Amino acid sequence: MTPAKSEPPGVFARALSIRTSRHTELKDVTAEVEKVVRESGCAEGVCYLYVPHTTAGVLINEGADPAVARDIEATLDRLVPHAGAYLHAEGNADSHIKTALVGSSETVWIEGSALSLGRWQAIFFAEFDGPRTRELRVKVIFDRP
Amino acid sequence: MTPAKSEPPGVFARALSIRTSRHTELKDVTAEVEKVVRESGCAEGVCYLYVPHTTAGVLINEGADPAVARDIEATLDRLVPHAGAYLHAEGNADSHIKTALVGSSETVWIEGSALSLGRWQAIFFAEFDGPRTRELRVKVIFDRP
Amino acid sequence: MTPAKSEPPGVFARALSIRTSRHTELKDVTAEVEKVVRESGCAEGVCYLYVPHTTAGVLINEGADPAVARDIEATLDRLVPHAGAYLHAEGNADSHIKTALVGSSETVWIEGSALSLGRWQAIFFAEFDGPRTRELRVKVIFDRP
Repeated sequence: MTPAKSEPPGVFARALSIRTSRHTELKDVTAEVEKVVRESGCAEGVCYLYVPHTTAGVLINEGADPAVARDIEATLDRLVPHAGAYLHAEGNADSHIKTALVGSSETVWIEGSALSLGRWQAIFFAEFDGPRTRELRVKVIFDRP
Repeated sequence: MTPAKSEPPGVFARALSIRTSRHTELKDVTAEVEKVVRESGCAEGVCYLYVPHTTAGVLINEGADPAVARDIEATLDRLVPHAGAYLHAEGNADSHIKTALVGSSETVWIEGSALSLGRWQAIFFAEFDGPRTRELRVKVIFDRP
Repeated sequence: MTPAKSEPPGVFARALSIRTSRHTELKDVTAEVEKVVRESGCAEGVCYLYVPHTTAGVLINEGADPAVARDIEATLDRLVPHAGAYLHAEGNADSHIKTALVGSSETVWIEGSALSLGRWQAIFFAEFDGPRTRELRVKVIFDRP
């Protein structure tokens, strides 16, 4: 977690460090994001998530059964295989393509001083070229500064 | 439509109830979202759309020719078949995966007291495990509170 | 670039004209978006990108090696071929479907009066039915109006 910067009232931003352990890995980071929201003191607002990498993204899906994340990983690996006739010579063209499909940002709301996720929803850091140490940026904008 | 809560000036949020009728169904909900924008009284602002489910999402595409939505549905069903070697045992792994590809949120702007959509654009609730009664959350943040 | 409209303090919006040259083309528009951010005078804020078309989107990925964009284009063309058993009779069903996968909006942050992109990240206008002249909308909301 980066140290607090000087921020205007109603804005709170942090960068989380995420350690991944597999090449393709959806890692549940809901608790880490929730911690930033609590630390922000925001009661109602919007929470922006941003991944500053080109071979990793962020998505929201079911966290209760870990098999769901495994199925998403396996399907992305099937649709965009690691080995293929790619032009990019660094051996991770598939990682870039998966990132383009999943996306680099998400927007969640804050209600009652907590992330307003659906009952089964969790936030996943979507690693497509791990294992690595990654960054997930979280920015909170208060509805009532 | 949920009743109005106490909101600060410049913020307006509602949850729409969406009834879907097929397993995979892109349902045009532009009119419902437009109604929330009108009710908000917002002239210029940002309109956030959020789906709190893990087997449904939201996307923007052509609404004029219904064949476009049918083609998107059919292609997603082809790329991520309902039946497959999935680990998730509830029979809807494909629904979760399609949701990961389409995404759970969208951001549209408000200009001149209306959604600032392109000429052919419509907002679709993307059902991937219907028929069900679903929720689409709409939040309006005014540019000038 | 559209002329400046009367905007409240802390809000700045422009529409960029983007000329594409191929049917499927990821075009790096980072410099154009960065120019809008500079023109806005915003030091810290949120930058919303929106594509008002139904056969083009926006995404963030690596800009350093042009092969990455070519690999993303080729994979999308492989997953969603131009020719296929589509219902939409205008010959560009694949363009609509690719747009649904990539998405119509992105959200980036502004820090230190510049786009807060990761080291290798670039913003790409994702053309799926070119060549055409297209529009990319950019809206900046200041953290401190």
